Amino acid sequence: MNQVYLDNAATTKDKPETVINKMSNFMKKINCSPGRGGYQCAIEAGKMVMDARFTIADFFKAEQVENIIFTKNITESLNFLIKGLLKKGDHVITTNLEHNAVLRPLKQLEDKDIIKVSYLKADQKGLFDPYLVSESINDSTKLILINHASNVTGTILPIEEIGQIASKHNVFFAIDTAQTAGIIDIDFKKLNLDFLGFTGHKSLLGPQGIGGMIISDRLANQMDSLITGGTGSLSESVNQPDFLPDKFESGTINTPGIVGLKAGIDYIQKTGIDTIFKHEKNLLDVFLAGLKSIKSIKVHGTLDSSKKVPTVGLSVEDYDIGELGYRLFNEYKIMVRSGLHCAPLAHKAIGTFPEGTLRFSIGWKNTKKEIEYTLNVLSKL
Amino acid sequence: MNQVYLDNAATTKDKPETVINKMSNFMKKINCSPGRGGYQCAIEAGKMVMDARFTIADFFKAEQVENIIFTKNITESLNFLIKGLLKKGDHVITTNLEHNAVLRPLKQLEDKDIIKVSYLKADQKGLFDPYLVSESINDSTKLILINHASNVTGTILPIEEIGQIASKHNVFFAIDTAQTAGIIDIDFKKLNLDFLGFTGHKSLLGPQGIGGMIISDRLANQMDSLITGGTGSLSESVNQPDFLPDKFESGTINTPGIVGLKAGIDYIQKTGIDTIFKHEKNLLDVFLAGLKSIKSIKVHGTLDSSKKVPTVGLSVEDYDIGELGYRLFNEYKIMVRSGLHCAPLAHKAIGTFPEGTLRFSIGWKNTKKEIEYTLNVLSKL
Repeated sequence: MNQVYLDNAATTKDKPETVINKMSNFMKKINCSPGRGGYQCAIEAGKMVMDARFTIADFFKAEQVENIIFTKNITESLNFLIKGLLKKGDHVITTNLEHNAVLRPLKQLEDKDIIKVSYLKADQKGLFDPYLVSESINDSTKLILINHASNVTGTILPIEEIGQIASKHNVFFAIDTAQTAGIIDIDFKKLNLDFLGFTGHKSLLGPQGIGGMIISDRLANQMDSLITGGTGSLSESVNQPDFLPDKFESGTINTPGIVGLKAGIDYIQKTGIDTIFKHEKNLLDVFLAGLKSIKSIKVHGTLDSSKKVPTVGLSVEDYDIGELGYRLFNEYKIMVRSGLHCAPLAHKAIGTFPEGTLRFSIGWKNTKKEIEYTLNVLSKL
Repeated sequence: MNQVYLDNAATTKDKPETVINKMSNFMKKINCSPGRGGYQCAIEAGKMVMDARFTIADFFKAEQVENIIFTKNITESLNFLIKGLLKKGDHVITTNLEHNAVLRPLKQLEDKDIIKVSYLKADQKGLFDPYLVSESINDSTKLILINHASNVTGTILPIEEIGQIASKHNVFFAIDTAQTAGIIDIDFKKLNLDFLGFTGHKSLLGPQGIGGMIISDRLANQMDSLITGGTGSLSESVNQPDFLPDKFESGTINTPGIVGLKAGIDYIQKTGIDTIFKHEKNLLDVFLAGLKSIKSIKVHGTLDSSKKVPTVGLSVEDYDIGELGYRLFNEYKIMVRSGLHCAPLAHKAIGTFPEGTLRFSIGWKNTKKEIEYTLNVLSKL
């Protein structure tokens, strides 16, 4: 075995060839600033960005392409939402399974006494009862913000049910799809979403440096833009335009990154997201079954693969997680992540704080052979 | 003549080959998440990001690599500064030559009654007396923020003098180098700068999607982070780390963009920034001399090429600017920009609001032949 990359929850390492080629071709042959000039290459660049918006809108079943906003990563998208929407006195509902991309901006506003936050608790398996959401809504509740799946346990959250609760109480509903977009089909409209934050470089198979968000009109109307500046539109005014996507896209955007992201999503659509999901789920089943037979290993979170994305966090009896991760790479060329994965409260929930877990996250490019090799190594150790 | 690209103030179109190749190579061969794993490719990615910080620190003579912060573009950098630093009651000094990347975030805070802003006035030639700054400082003045050169007239502002004034009054001093970085040598330390915002995709010859800022320690200490989230550090805490660069770099960064930017700066350092400056200045002199002999053309801003970057804004008697730009491309394949270039107050200063100017901006890849061809076409029209 050459090398086994099992850190797909951090970033997907092997991109489709078209992602890299299309980025290079854009930079070699076009490389003008989109929407910022009337000559051909600027118009072509603008058209490529627009094509990417159409692809993303189609992929996530969003109604209008203007509501697709590009950012540098999902962390920026989540900050736009949290800091652009929430005002003095607002209440937010979230969970203890969130990533620091949600927890830290919320904490910042809490510390300034601007908002109040309810952190709903998952059980020790990392599962989460949507009824908790109904119970926590009060008159000040402005936003429900949850991740679609935990980056620690892989647990998928019940977003359909929560979306219905949000809709019933007329509260904005937002999801962080960092661990699901590109693996699980997500329907912006059907889910009653107001916000879908996505990152380009994980299972959407695009490059690092590009992410985005889809926002509903009613949310966009109530959100200030966290970042303002030149938009190529209404240049005569020192006020930020209030139409989409310009309101939330200031400065020159990452056109090569957008071109790469579109190529990644094109690849997923051509392959079929169901095919990708099945492949990853099959590998997850093989992995979970194999882990069961290794006595000293404890798998955290649910073992039910139908409730998980293919991310597995584990501990090993009498073994330091960090050392194990180090040995896995140095002796066996298996790349995994040890620690807290930027989600401290999730580890508190499942009882692995502060030492963390050893995280194995499976991706589209992994093979059954690699999973079997990994199981073999783990049973040896 | 094939095509003449004269919109380098928007973005530089032809990048050094190494920029594109190194980005592709990174994505093909490494492509892990920097600082987010203990295995080889993650460490290599981290090393490449660190190398880029060293290159940038060296290029701008910044003392410490941690003070180099990557953002998606200079607009983001300027928003970090403005919205992270300024608190209720603060006063800011800026000029009417600024880009909307400065004007719009300032206006946002003014409209919320948080800050007061003095917009110092350039004269009709676009020149600016630093004495105006001294006069405007009061007890609430927290920040002086100016562009190094105007993107409308190309005029270089007297930043040495203004830096001394800022230093004397103990006010933070910040510059926007969007139009100068990569053409003019900038010494962070010598200029008494607290903030230097840069964009990667203009004269630094990197790709779109990457920019940054250099910040002094004393400024960093007083700045909140506009965007917070996972940093790969202090994962056990829901508080943003307070050390650099992590405080201001949340979420996965644009590693391919950073690799490309480093390659762009390496190219500049190998070529010599003085060589680049001389080449562009020579072309500017040829262009300005040629324009003088075309009677119906009025060049806005100073005609003194020693006070300018190679950006020229002009009007033509009895001609609509937009139509002229259109004809230049459609009939002669000359790419320029018409309009206000996201800097409305600058056009008010030089008397070209709201119709704007036709902007010709020269770059490293332009040739004397191209400038002569352009002059020829202009005299024909």
